[in-house]
Amino acid sequence: MFSSSIQNGLETAKLVWSRLPAEEVESEESSSTRKSNGGGGAESLDYEVVENYAYREEQAQRGAIYVAYTVAVKWFFALLIGVGTGLAAVFINLAVENFAGWKFAATFSLIQHSYFVGFLVYTLINLALVLSSVFIVTQFAPAAAGSGIPEIKGYLNGIDTHGILLFRTLIGKIFGSIGSVGGGLALGKEGPLVHTGACIASLFGQGGSTKYHLSLRWLQVFKSDRDRRDLVTCGCAAGVAAAFRAPVGGVLFALEEVTSWWRSQLMWRVFFTSAVVAVVVRTAMRWCSSGKCGHFGSGGFIIWDISGGQDDYSFEELFPMAIIGIIGGLLGALFNQLTFLITYWRRKYLHKRGSKVKIIEACLISLLTSAISFGLPLLRKCSPCPEMEANSDMKCPRPPGMYGNYVNFYCHKEKEYNDLATIFFNTQDDAIRNLFSAKTFHEYTAKSLLTFLAMFYTLAVVTFGTAVPAGQFVPGIMIGSTYGRLVGMFVVKHYKKLNVEEGTYALLGAASFLGGSMRMTVSLCVIMVEITNNLQLLPLIMLVLLISKAVGDAFNHGLYEEQARLRGIPLLESRPKYHMRNMTAKEACRKQKVVYFPRVVKVEDLVSILRCNKHNGFPVIDHSRNGEALVLGLILRSYLLVLLQSKKDFQHGALPCDLGGRSIPIRHNFSEFVKPVSSKGLSIEDIHLSPDDLEMYIDLAPFLNPSPYIVPEDTSLSKAYNLFRQLGLRHILVVPRPSRVTGMITRKDLLLKENEDPATLELEATSVRV
Amino acid sequence: MFSSSIQNGLETAKLVWSRLPAEEVESEESSSTRKSNGGGGAESLDYEVVENYAYREEQAQRGAIYVAYTVAVKWFFALLIGVGTGLAAVFINLAVENFAGWKFAATFSLIQHSYFVGFLVYTLINLALVLSSVFIVTQFAPAAAGSGIPEIKGYLNGIDTHGILLFRTLIGKIFGSIGSVGGGLALGKEGPLVHTGACIASLFGQGGSTKYHLSLRWLQVFKSDRDRRDLVTCGCAAGVAAAFRAPVGGVLFALEEVTSWWRSQLMWRVFFTSAVVAVVVRTAMRWCSSGKCGHFGSGGFIIWDISGGQDDYSFEELFPMAIIGIIGGLLGALFNQLTFLITYWRRKYLHKRGSKVKIIEACLISLLTSAISFGLPLLRKCSPCPEMEANSDMKCPRPPGMYGNYVNFYCHKEKEYNDLATIFFNTQDDAIRNLFSAKTFHEYTAKSLLTFLAMFYTLAVVTFGTAVPAGQFVPGIMIGSTYGRLVGMFVVKHYKKLNVEEGTYALLGAASFLGGSMRMTVSLCVIMVEITNNLQLLPLIMLVLLISKAVGDAFNHGLYEEQARLRGIPLLESRPKYHMRNMTAKEACRKQKVVYFPRVVKVEDLVSILRCNKHNGFPVIDHSRNGEALVLGLILRSYLLVLLQSKKDFQHGALPCDLGGRSIPIRHNFSEFVKPVSSKGLSIEDIHLSPDDLEMYIDLAPFLNPSPYIVPEDTSLSKAYNLFRQLGLRHILVVPRPSRVTGMITRKDLLLKENEDPATLELEATSVRV
Repeated sequence: MFSSSIQNGLETAKLVWSRLPAEEVESEESSSTRKSNGGGGAESLDYEVVENYAYREEQAQRGAIYVAYTVAVKWFFALLIGVGTGLAAVFINLAVENFAGWKFAATFSLIQHSYFVGFLVYTLINLALVLSSVFIVTQFAPAAAGSGIPEIKGYLNGIDTHGILLFRTLIGKIFGSIGSVGGGLALGKEGPLVHTGACIASLFGQGGSTKYHLSLRWLQVFKSDRDRRDLVTCGCAAGVAAAFRAPVGGVLFALEEVTSWWRSQLMWRVFFTSAVVAVVVRTAMRWCSSGKCGHFGSGGFIIWDISGGQDDYSFEELFPMAIIGIIGGLLGALFNQLTFLITYWRRKYLHKRGSKVKIIEACLISLLTSAISFGLPLLRKCSPCPEMEANSDMKCPRPPGMYGNYVNFYCHKEKEYNDLATIFFNTQDDAIRNLFSAKTFHEYTAKSLLTFLAMFYTLAVVTFGTAVPAGQFVPGIMIGSTYGRLVGMFVVKHYKKLNVEEGTYALLGAASFLGGSMRMTVSLCVIMVEITNNLQLLPLIMLVLLISKAVGDAFNHGLYEEQARLRGIPLLESRPKYHMRNMTAKEACRKQKVVYFPRVVKVEDLVSILRCNKHNGFPVIDHSRNGEALVLGLILRSYLLVLLQSKKDFQHGALPCDLGGRSIPIRHNFSEFVKPVSSKGLSIEDIHLSPDDLEMYIDLAPFLNPSPYIVPEDTSLSKAYNLFRQLGLRHILVVPRPSRVTGMITRKDLLLKENEDPATLELEATSVRV
Repeated sequence: MFSSSIQNGLETAKLVWSRLPAEEVESEESSSTRKSNGGGGAESLDYEVVENYAYREEQAQRGAIYVAYTVAVKWFFALLIGVGTGLAAVFINLAVENFAGWKFAATFSLIQHSYFVGFLVYTLINLALVLSSVFIVTQFAPAAAGSGIPEIKGYLNGIDTHGILLFRTLIGKIFGSIGSVGGGLALGKEGPLVHTGACIASLFGQGGSTKYHLSLRWLQVFKSDRDRRDLVTCGCAAGVAAAFRAPVGGVLFALEEVTSWWRSQLMWRVFFTSAVVAVVVRTAMRWCSSGKCGHFGSGGFIIWDISGGQDDYSFEELFPMAIIGIIGGLLGALFNQLTFLITYWRRKYLHKRGSKVKIIEACLISLLTSAISFGLPLLRKCSPCPEMEANSDMKCPRPPGMYGNYVNFYCHKEKEYNDLATIFFNTQDDAIRNLFSAKTFHEYTAKSLLTFLAMFYTLAVVTFGTAVPAGQFVPGIMIGSTYGRLVGMFVVKHYKKLNVEEGTYALLGAASFLGGSMRMTVSLCVIMVEITNNLQLLPLIMLVLLISKAVGDAFNHGLYEEQARLRGIPLLESRPKYHMRNMTAKEACRKQKVVYFPRVVKVEDLVSILRCNKHNGFPVIDHSRNGEALVLGLILRSYLLVLLQSKKDFQHGALPCDLGGRSIPIRHNFSEFVKPVSSKGLSIEDIHLSPDDLEMYIDLAPFLNPSPYIVPEDTSLSKAYNLFRQLGLRHILVVPRPSRVTGMITRKDLLLKENEDPATLELEATSVRV
């Protein structure tokens, strides 16, 4: 039927062309997105597998062995992602613990002689570490700044931010993270680990990094964005599992927080990846436990075992716990708001001036942090050591060079400790362990905790958004456990129950702040349980999280959503907005001109049309023998660019290539059409064609998506939204209301037996079936 | 434009009619489904909200306060479901523990005098309990038989099995469960609790039970199947949370195992429900801990605290653990296969003969179970008690009437115990606790464990499918922990490590059997961790589950899928079958004639068409002024039946009701169209119309779904499948390939600001927009 489309080809192309005054064409991507996105620029992803002719042919040739091979590679990759992320986590923790350990050891030995020299050395080591971090990030891997979770979330929602999953970003993230966390800034290494896991997964998905000649051809089996997205989901889960040693928490985090489309068969693979991470990390920890890894030992990984703490609670305690939830919601929402404003200001005024400003900024913040964490404890009066029980393994003051409570810092007597230094002049992991610790009543005074809370909160807000890899988990736990412990002290004082532990309240405080800021529920709950190794407190953590999330939601969105908004990552929420019910699909796209192609198009026309608009998809419309127009499908801009660049499919005549019973010749491997993740892809400006080339024609039929999803033009927009969001689409064609119904698909039609009539299922010869 | 459709109305109806020889019309529901489904019969559900005119008008009238009210009611219901399910769980456990406690106390005191009298009393009590259970189920609530999870899974997949969520089913489930579990059969109370939770949730969703006059009007706010499904999901999670005291496991079970469509905002509510259950159960347990609840105390709820057991493992242990995984996969797959065959046989030959046969069958199995569990330990020689450590709180033999290890049963000496009686002559909960127990090396001989394994496995297979409420969790744990402990004994003997515990291997065995039979992953893992209160073993449980699921998957589907298949519940898998790629949507429905209506239809024609086919949805097609046909939408059979029954919308002329600018009069409340859950709904045979009525006309426009989802006829079936499955549809219209594209919807178009132009968004006057 399409053999008659020759005569219409040219006319249609010209018709299209004449309809396209360049100034009227709008960019398909919102222009505000591009503007606000500084260096980057984001692009939509198509998670639907484009089952065009080339793809089908390739699939058909391969058969069962290829399918088995693909499945095996998927599982093998899950294993590799687990091992890779586990090792990366061990490496980061090893490095951070050793840097921090040396730093504190050197400082403690120096302040025995002079506090000034100690301060100087402490500050300089911190500065050097932070400088190395910010230098790596600004000069080598700009996409490694920040936590990376908003970008990963965006990627899994369908927005590919340039540079976010490159090899250089991975390297920048790992080493930058070591510098920024080792340098004592008020940030954590957990968010970056999630990003690290995602990068590792993405590199496997592409079969390595082509830029650095690290790619393997036999690994390049994943050609659809969907397969790659699945791997990145595995990587996220692996990152969380490694960061918190919480495998179940990792699976849930990937499920609840980052992915937008979840399939239950994926859960199984994500679960496997997390289990692998758990085994790898445990093996490394065992190997290190004999002291082979320097300062890295029982600390490092954030496990704060409180299984020896409070294991019961009375009903009267629910009230102060609810208070903690409310405080968490308020402080969390405030944190999101402040960081939003300060990041906005930074992006708008500060970071535009180049990387020098970013480096100076990070160094200033490092100096400030060092000064506060060293100087404030100096101003604080020491407290006398409490009576220790005989069989307790705690010591007061703790021996120099050891971890533990009761730090002797600027105290004049032997048996004294400085409670502010115990939490401030310490690595964050150890400080949290001290705050969570049980059996240490009245270790901290309310004044010290309040001072610390105010100072650390400010530092965390100011540090957020500098050009270093930065996670918000550990700072959040620090802030939350401080006010939690404050409430706990109050409860111990007034309720006078024997089994109340201040450490338990610190844990609940930590959960409440994270809930109030990040707004996670189930995954956060499981992570808190896994890192504290205490299941008894699960209902309490649930209660606190419920309250803090509800309070926080009254004010603003979660931290990651706010940051994604700021970075111009247009996340699609899972539900359509209420007013979409009253809009039709046609109204939603009425400002937009549809640009379409005929089946066989002249190269010259193609180039001019691609040049004068930024649409990413074009319907292909052709006329059948009786003059009736038919929508053949949708062709993507990226495919057209590949076709133009390769020139393989250029033909001299305007006739369809399968004319007269000839089959369509396959000149392309399907993988040629796949855009590498995080790259900018081809642009029409990159393609240079000779005048001869411009006179040629190209038949689009083998390359178009023959059945894009469609909606009638008066469908309500909320229905179209559901379709778009649930299936992870990039384009929906809006078409006139149909005039006929040729059939109805119901459940029965979809429950065909697999072996019902395979003989009658002939493979279609062309992708366009009439 | 539709005002001109008058003249076409009649002709179209006649045209349609003439095309419909009754013998050619096929049932839309597969006839095999109905046949295999014995008493029940299943019906498809539409989870898409039908936004027809009546619905929109009702929504528009209500506004913001109504929305807030709905949200508040949703959360209030989540609270009520949690409280209700928690109380039901406490009640069931209380009753079971007390019945079982009295039974064993009476038997133990009797066997001091005569073993024969003891056996007689033991058997009679068991028989009485089982008889009560099977009587309730067969006479009063046939849908309460079995575990109920396959049916709930089917409901959430879109298949409403009649009777499954009724009030009488709830009652039958609770009391039947007490009888069957208290009567010592080889089944558990956990699956039925999930069903109980779902029933409670569904009753709230309908605002009570209308049949028993327990309904409240102000609670009837949920009118769409989607809202009800969400509640049922909450109920499932609450059931698991109550059964295992595992709130996180409950959320994950609902997510992984039962729901087919998951929205992240639902997770939050499910989480809340689970938390409420945890609090309710804990409160009840505290209240009972002072001894107010008879035999119900620390036992009952299946918590087997092994936190004092093994907390580390060496690499050599991974090999026997992998063996456990493989055994679990094999035995689990065999269990699925055997239960499938035996249930098939039962349904085909036995249960057809009426409820008497069912009662006799259950009684025979009860007698057999009693005989084996009492008789086999008699044949076993007693072992001498091991040396007890001084500070151990275990006693050998245990004092009569207490729970614990080392049961003295038919032993001739004082210091002896019967190891087979310790696991066999006991409630299942206590038996599992004994199998999991640490620090009890060599308590069981391999011979006893093997005997028990073979006997209990056979009993579990035979008991499965009798007409009593029956869960498979606890029997599965029993079977698994037996062979797990066997492997553990082997490891203790040969590896000679100090910290290896047989109880740990029993736990892994339990996980492996459940994994091999039910094929759950993350949720099962979390449930196992929550019931044993030991996070250290998490990676090991993951490993074992991975292996056993992989081994089991090589043989057959999971237990619930197999059972659903047997019951004729056509579950739609989340992925399309491979061969669907090569089929078009048109081919899938080519055997089926499309029956359609004009906009205004004569009642007589309507009745005749409804009578001679069983389609559940009909396209409505009308002609515009210029004679062009247009698909107006889709009308459901159930709506038509309601319209016919109420007669409110009958009109004398064949003119559309909004002719000449008149607005459509609303004579219906939207809730009238909602079919009560689990009911058979209206049938055309229930409707009686006078000859005058038959001469009237009815305008379908206000009641049709104006924008059903459509696919072009040459779309690949796998695409249509994804659309159907992901959005939870019941009908997709297959239409000719469109000839024009009026617009393209991209991400940008869906990211409209909420307050962009609310003024210009006028509400449409009619549902049909042209």
